[in-house]
Amino acid sequence: MHKPWVYLFSEVEKAEQTVNGDWEAIRGLFGGKGANLAEMVRIGLPVPPGFTVTTEACNAYLEMGREFPEGMWEQELAALKEVEALTGKKFGDPENPLLISCRSGAKFSMPGMMDTVLNIGLNDDTVVGLTRLTGDERFVYDAYRRLIQMFGSVVMGIDDDVFEDIIEAQTIKSGVNGDADLTASDWKAVTEEFKITFRKGAMRDFPTDPYDQLRMATEAVFKSWNGKRAIDYRNAANIPHDLGTAVNIVAMVFGNMGPDSATGVAMTRNGTTGEPEIEGDYLINAQGEDVVAGIRLTEEIQYMQSQLPDAYAELVAIAKKLETHYRDMQDIEFTIEKDKLWMLQTRDGKRTAQAAVRIAVDMAEEDLITKKEAVLRVTPEQVDFFLHPQFDADAIELARQDGSLLATGLNVSPGAACGMVAMDADLAEAWSKNDGKPVIMVRPETKPDDVHGMLASQGILTSRGGRTSHAALVARQFGKPAVVGVSELDIDMIKRQIRVGSEVIREGDWLSIDGNTGEVFTGSLKTNIPDIQDLYLIKLLSWADEFRRLGVWANADYPADATRAREYGAQGIGLCRSEHMFFEANRLPLFQKMIMTDRPYERREALAGLLPFQREDFAGLFRAMDGLPVIIRLIDPPLHEFLPDLVELMGELSDLKLRIKHAGTLVEIDELLEKIKIKEAIRTRALNLKEQNPMLGLRGVRLGIPIPELTTMQVRAIFEAACQVAAEGIQVLPEVMIPLTSHINELKVQRKVLEEEAKRVMAEQKAEIEYKFGTMIEIPRAALTADQIATSAEFVSFGTNDLTQTTFGISRDDAESGFLIEYMEEGILAENPFATIDRDGVGELMRIAVARGRQTQPDLECGICGEHGGEPKSIELCHKLGLNYVSCSPFRVPIARLAAAHAALKE
Amino acid sequence: MHKPWVYLFSEVEKAEQTVNGDWEAIRGLFGGKGANLAEMVRIGLPVPPGFTVTTEACNAYLEMGREFPEGMWEQELAALKEVEALTGKKFGDPENPLLISCRSGAKFSMPGMMDTVLNIGLNDDTVVGLTRLTGDERFVYDAYRRLIQMFGSVVMGIDDDVFEDIIEAQTIKSGVNGDADLTASDWKAVTEEFKITFRKGAMRDFPTDPYDQLRMATEAVFKSWNGKRAIDYRNAANIPHDLGTAVNIVAMVFGNMGPDSATGVAMTRNGTTGEPEIEGDYLINAQGEDVVAGIRLTEEIQYMQSQLPDAYAELVAIAKKLETHYRDMQDIEFTIEKDKLWMLQTRDGKRTAQAAVRIAVDMAEEDLITKKEAVLRVTPEQVDFFLHPQFDADAIELARQDGSLLATGLNVSPGAACGMVAMDADLAEAWSKNDGKPVIMVRPETKPDDVHGMLASQGILTSRGGRTSHAALVARQFGKPAVVGVSELDIDMIKRQIRVGSEVIREGDWLSIDGNTGEVFTGSLKTNIPDIQDLYLIKLLSWADEFRRLGVWANADYPADATRAREYGAQGIGLCRSEHMFFEANRLPLFQKMIMTDRPYERREALAGLLPFQREDFAGLFRAMDGLPVIIRLIDPPLHEFLPDLVELMGELSDLKLRIKHAGTLVEIDELLEKIKIKEAIRTRALNLKEQNPMLGLRGVRLGIPIPELTTMQVRAIFEAACQVAAEGIQVLPEVMIPLTSHINELKVQRKVLEEEAKRVMAEQKAEIEYKFGTMIEIPRAALTADQIATSAEFVSFGTNDLTQTTFGISRDDAESGFLIEYMEEGILAENPFATIDRDGVGELMRIAVARGRQTQPDLECGICGEHGGEPKSIELCHKLGLNYVSCSPFRVPIARLAAAHAALKE
Repeated sequence: MHKPWVYLFSEVEKAEQTVNGDWEAIRGLFGGKGANLAEMVRIGLPVPPGFTVTTEACNAYLEMGREFPEGMWEQELAALKEVEALTGKKFGDPENPLLISCRSGAKFSMPGMMDTVLNIGLNDDTVVGLTRLTGDERFVYDAYRRLIQMFGSVVMGIDDDVFEDIIEAQTIKSGVNGDADLTASDWKAVTEEFKITFRKGAMRDFPTDPYDQLRMATEAVFKSWNGKRAIDYRNAANIPHDLGTAVNIVAMVFGNMGPDSATGVAMTRNGTTGEPEIEGDYLINAQGEDVVAGIRLTEEIQYMQSQLPDAYAELVAIAKKLETHYRDMQDIEFTIEKDKLWMLQTRDGKRTAQAAVRIAVDMAEEDLITKKEAVLRVTPEQVDFFLHPQFDADAIELARQDGSLLATGLNVSPGAACGMVAMDADLAEAWSKNDGKPVIMVRPETKPDDVHGMLASQGILTSRGGRTSHAALVARQFGKPAVVGVSELDIDMIKRQIRVGSEVIREGDWLSIDGNTGEVFTGSLKTNIPDIQDLYLIKLLSWADEFRRLGVWANADYPADATRAREYGAQGIGLCRSEHMFFEANRLPLFQKMIMTDRPYERREALAGLLPFQREDFAGLFRAMDGLPVIIRLIDPPLHEFLPDLVELMGELSDLKLRIKHAGTLVEIDELLEKIKIKEAIRTRALNLKEQNPMLGLRGVRLGIPIPELTTMQVRAIFEAACQVAAEGIQVLPEVMIPLTSHINELKVQRKVLEEEAKRVMAEQKAEIEYKFGTMIEIPRAALTADQIATSAEFVSFGTNDLTQTTFGISRDDAESGFLIEYMEEGILAENPFATIDRDGVGELMRIAVARGRQTQPDLECGICGEHGGEPKSIELCHKLGLNYVSCSPFRVPIARLAAAHAALKE
Repeated sequence: MHKPWVYLFSEVEKAEQTVNGDWEAIRGLFGGKGANLAEMVRIGLPVPPGFTVTTEACNAYLEMGREFPEGMWEQELAALKEVEALTGKKFGDPENPLLISCRSGAKFSMPGMMDTVLNIGLNDDTVVGLTRLTGDERFVYDAYRRLIQMFGSVVMGIDDDVFEDIIEAQTIKSGVNGDADLTASDWKAVTEEFKITFRKGAMRDFPTDPYDQLRMATEAVFKSWNGKRAIDYRNAANIPHDLGTAVNIVAMVFGNMGPDSATGVAMTRNGTTGEPEIEGDYLINAQGEDVVAGIRLTEEIQYMQSQLPDAYAELVAIAKKLETHYRDMQDIEFTIEKDKLWMLQTRDGKRTAQAAVRIAVDMAEEDLITKKEAVLRVTPEQVDFFLHPQFDADAIELARQDGSLLATGLNVSPGAACGMVAMDADLAEAWSKNDGKPVIMVRPETKPDDVHGMLASQGILTSRGGRTSHAALVARQFGKPAVVGVSELDIDMIKRQIRVGSEVIREGDWLSIDGNTGEVFTGSLKTNIPDIQDLYLIKLLSWADEFRRLGVWANADYPADATRAREYGAQGIGLCRSEHMFFEANRLPLFQKMIMTDRPYERREALAGLLPFQREDFAGLFRAMDGLPVIIRLIDPPLHEFLPDLVELMGELSDLKLRIKHAGTLVEIDELLEKIKIKEAIRTRALNLKEQNPMLGLRGVRLGIPIPELTTMQVRAIFEAACQVAAEGIQVLPEVMIPLTSHINELKVQRKVLEEEAKRVMAEQKAEIEYKFGTMIEIPRAALTADQIATSAEFVSFGTNDLTQTTFGISRDDAESGFLIEYMEEGILAENPFATIDRDGVGELMRIAVARGRQTQPDLECGICGEHGGEPKSIELCHKLGLNYVSCSPFRVPIARLAAAHAALKE
């Protein structure tokens, strides 16, 4: 026999037996809403009687060509009988009619995407009995017309506007301001009009048989799983299409039955700040939709204590019980019908990143969850929140209430952005670059041609596309807040305006978008930079540190970066790019002089000028990192990067030459000629250094070998700085790293130069500094021959940016705004390998390198200093590969600490 | 007890016991010359009595600070006693003096690099006895003065010119033309002068005690191992420095004892052509050096049959015996002293590549060696000989005799070249490019700045540098014949001339260089293109085919190439670069049109125009390869390669714009404007397609995915051609290959496009063609994920050019004339990885790919189509990795066949 298609909420244990108590399976079978209702019943909370038609029934229905599977309807009727017994009412009974709601409920929440029919059971007969029972005819006819309207639009597909037009006509006819002022007889008249409209639109009468109503509503919910909106949503949210929806049939309770009735929603803790007190809104004598619709001004939940003290006390106790049961903050819906509290829904509450951190910490300290669980409750992406501008919590709350919330779409790239609407990329760029205006670029969708506009914008908003759309990928890539797939936006490229319902936004108007929530607001909302020094975050991260095994270091080129990194918890500097210092204004001319000559003597002279600068920079790093290791990478980029751009040079040359024409004196001419001579020498050198594929060219260790003076100067700067700082009583732990190694012999040659110079400096300074010598692994060959590399290197650090380029044969500069995006859109690549380490290719090379390197040197220090070092999935991979540490931007250190803990805890 | 320091030639078995009969060890101990003399004694050939002081004695002497090791001198004296017994003469006996020679003899021949002293044992007393015995006072004093001269220069380091000056003075004094006319008393006078000169130069008297002579000569030979010349030679020839030299002490025999005496050299077969008859020269009544010096005209060896019939018969028999014993052609030296034949030397004879092939084949057919040995006797490099121009054998023979042979250096890059001497790179380029003159670039050594001149030259000649010098590496790289390290060349960059001894070559004079032999000739020698269809070569290669397991395919883009490849033995086409056809004049505009549009319809239209051309080209290939597989690779290069160069375009645009100024009519202006419009569109597109690192950019499969029309057209052309040719009764075996794959999903997408189009064409043509679908593996990620790749690919082919670039992170375009050369000069890389597969990096990726690919698909067809496919060491690696075939340029197919056989036979 097939397992039941229908379960009473009280039968959840029966269902559990069929799936061995697997809560995920129960959620799959009952849907989220049904499972939580049943669970509330199980723990003795007041839930209106009801039952769930399972997702399996839905799938069977859809598979069988839209026929109920065998036995389902009979089971539904039997369950209904139980509900009648529990409520003491009877379905379709004119005397004491049972009304029920019929709601969808999938495993994963798809808000507003599927159908609901309320007040099922009303007809011309039962309204009479209900009126008598409630003594409130207006309420009853309002409920009746709602049933016909919902049934008409949801079940029969009649355009809802037709019904709304009738209501509007009635308000005119009755000379009142709006729905709220319509009387019982007005609603009676509307109901009659609705029945006629229904007949016209559905080609049949409104079904007066409550059982017909129930059957058709059940079917409608089933079908809504494959509605276009639902499919689009699932595509965008990556929800599988074969889950199906459950149908929850619940006895109606009414919060609009007088001053002892109410309805409300609440979070068991503050979802914005995480403060540990119940937070929510309620309305006396109202229905659920009134609270949500915002027509009446709601009361803060705490006020209920004075209005409905018993119900309030019960609600607070239930909230506590639910938190204890679910071990998480809950988002609940309730109705009070004549002083009796009914729970209509509970689910894990959504929360801001800030709240997530505080709630996790508080709950752990309340012993509700363990520290481990607390750490796992907060995602690294939530920590990321602390690093982007965010909308001010009050401002956003106000905006949500004051009608500024224009629409909601997919939250594909986090952060808050405000700007003026620009409807094409060129305009966005022009406004931003020329006029300095902040811009939100709005497009139906974006294409590769739009990238320059996206880069110039504060944020990106589109009406089409999902999480892997071009807009989403590019925005995440470049850290631009973005909301996509906002289907309510009707973008008119001719009129250069956007319609949302009746509202019109013109090009140049201000919009604010929240990439964390997907919300789009009119106007410019206040933004804040969050405080990374949030005490709860600090506590949570300190717990994370207890669990992680992976070290977290930072990439920092300057002492200030190092200091920040250390504040954020970095345990070392994994990468100091020693050449960044050469680009500064007072150093570049010296470095260019070094490039311009082939004579070792002149080179040494130019480099000698740079030495004091480098030494000071390194000394600053060592001071900041007292007692922690500092890895300094010797010069990496190709030399032509230090010379002026060729095109610019040609322009300057032409200019100088033209100026000779107008030169007044011989002295002037001579001066110009001299300048031309210098520029031409630079041009010649730049041409000379030009390469077909500079990424694969003369850089890294390939510079240090032909120009040993360069290595020598850098090594001298490192060791002079180290000796100097050590003399101040500071513990200095320098590690010198060679970039772009592909062959062990390159390392050997450089190691010799380094050791000789280090020894010389230490002898001069009469000091002994312990140091390590190592190399980047950023070339496949280095990874493959790590056993050889480890004979000379005491540590290795994966440069996964370059390693990804060579392993994939992809130039990041060219591809990331080009074909890579197409690859991701078409699903050829699931992820951008420059954002998340490609596990099978780059990850495999890393695995090989670690294994072979440690074959030679079992305790070989292995780290990563590519950008991936701050990305959670990549950090998990690094953990699995047994690296010693990840090194990332100082700002990402907190994220990495948490991600490393997650990796360890998930094992 | 230490093994003996000294062995009589007859004691070789005793030595063999100490090294377990290992012939290589014997050669190491005795040196090549000593080992062969001993071996000749063992097989009963007439060798003058003598003994060898071992290389170990030499090494011990050098290590112990130039003292004979214990017991060595006593052993030498004991051996000398045995020689006295065997000859019946006594060392230092005035009545019947024994004379001996003292020669160096290292394991590997180092011609002319170490020392020799002849006629040891002569002094004022023994000359008297010898004169009486020989009755030839002139001979005896000539011998005596030679001893003093050699001893003076070799042992005591006196400048040889001082001795030569004395001889010249004597000829003047005696009023004769030259040495040959000096009389006994003249030589007597010279001898007396020599003694005085010796005393002055050496600060001591000439040692009259024969034992002193022997001891000092032995020491001199030992020391000469560490002479500068010898060290330089070993560095250049990659001979280890710790081998040491043996000293061979042999009783003197004299070919200048009258008309029944003679001396000569011979090869047991013709070293130039390989013809199986003895070849050589001799002189009646002469000493060895007379033959070599070329002062007297030598006779062809065959003429000896009439002059000295008995000795000739014996010599021919010995030659035969030696060949049978050594199982190889021998290069021998002999002396006939009063009708008695003495063998002075035998060694494996040097031979031309042509001779090597013929001798190997002949010997196998004579059952002297096996077919396997014959195949192993010829090196792939010798087969390479058949592919380069070579000097005409007669011309070179003549040149060697007529004094055109200027000098000999290291043969670092094969082939023959004639040209006018240009002494710097700019001049070389100017003469070659502007004046069309053939040029030999001559430099003391070359530097990276010289590469343009080297490329413009026919050949390269330097006076310095060894096998890994810049000149050698670049020359081999670009297939330019080169001779380097010719120390005799005295290059005067001021006078723009080269001195060799007394000869002066001026800039602009003709030189001919032989990169096979290292010879440098004055003038322009005749060159020939060798006949690859040499019958002996064909036979040898057919034997090679019996032994090899690796298939040999060819890379061919056109039917003519395919036909040649098949003639040379190719078993398939491993790579047809399908885009090469697009570059032809009548096709390029169509292809450019395809590039210029983004509209699929216009693209298809442009591509439709190309279809017939591609179809015809493919049909031709299929016809040529009837019954053999043909792998066609879909388009690979980035699209900008098909557009005109940007700089050129800008020039053309400027030109067009200027022309408007002078346009006569409106029509003319309109025409110009139209042209400008078109050019500007091309310019925009070219700019658009420009990439930072095109090697890692939009090419290969990355083109086929966004432009599926391109794939479709190429697939259609392949299958239309296949159907058409199959209908002609020809067996067509097409394999379609996707380039630059890095991810399995790329393959899947392309496979779908391909299969659909192939099916469509076959349905249209009502034909069924069996085909394979596969991919290049030229990106590390593809190699690492070959297990996934093999789920879609039915074959893979390693593109080791690209794979080397990405595995090493080296751009070939930039590095190969840049830092790679420096890396090889400095020994950081032993070999150019673009010439020979880098075993540890690229080879390791190949190993991984083969293993993982065959994990998924045990019979996965694996091949290689990079340039390495024709390079012997790389072929050996491919064999070891278990590839199915190598594919190379048609010209290299014969080399690959032999190399593949070697790989199999060496296992």
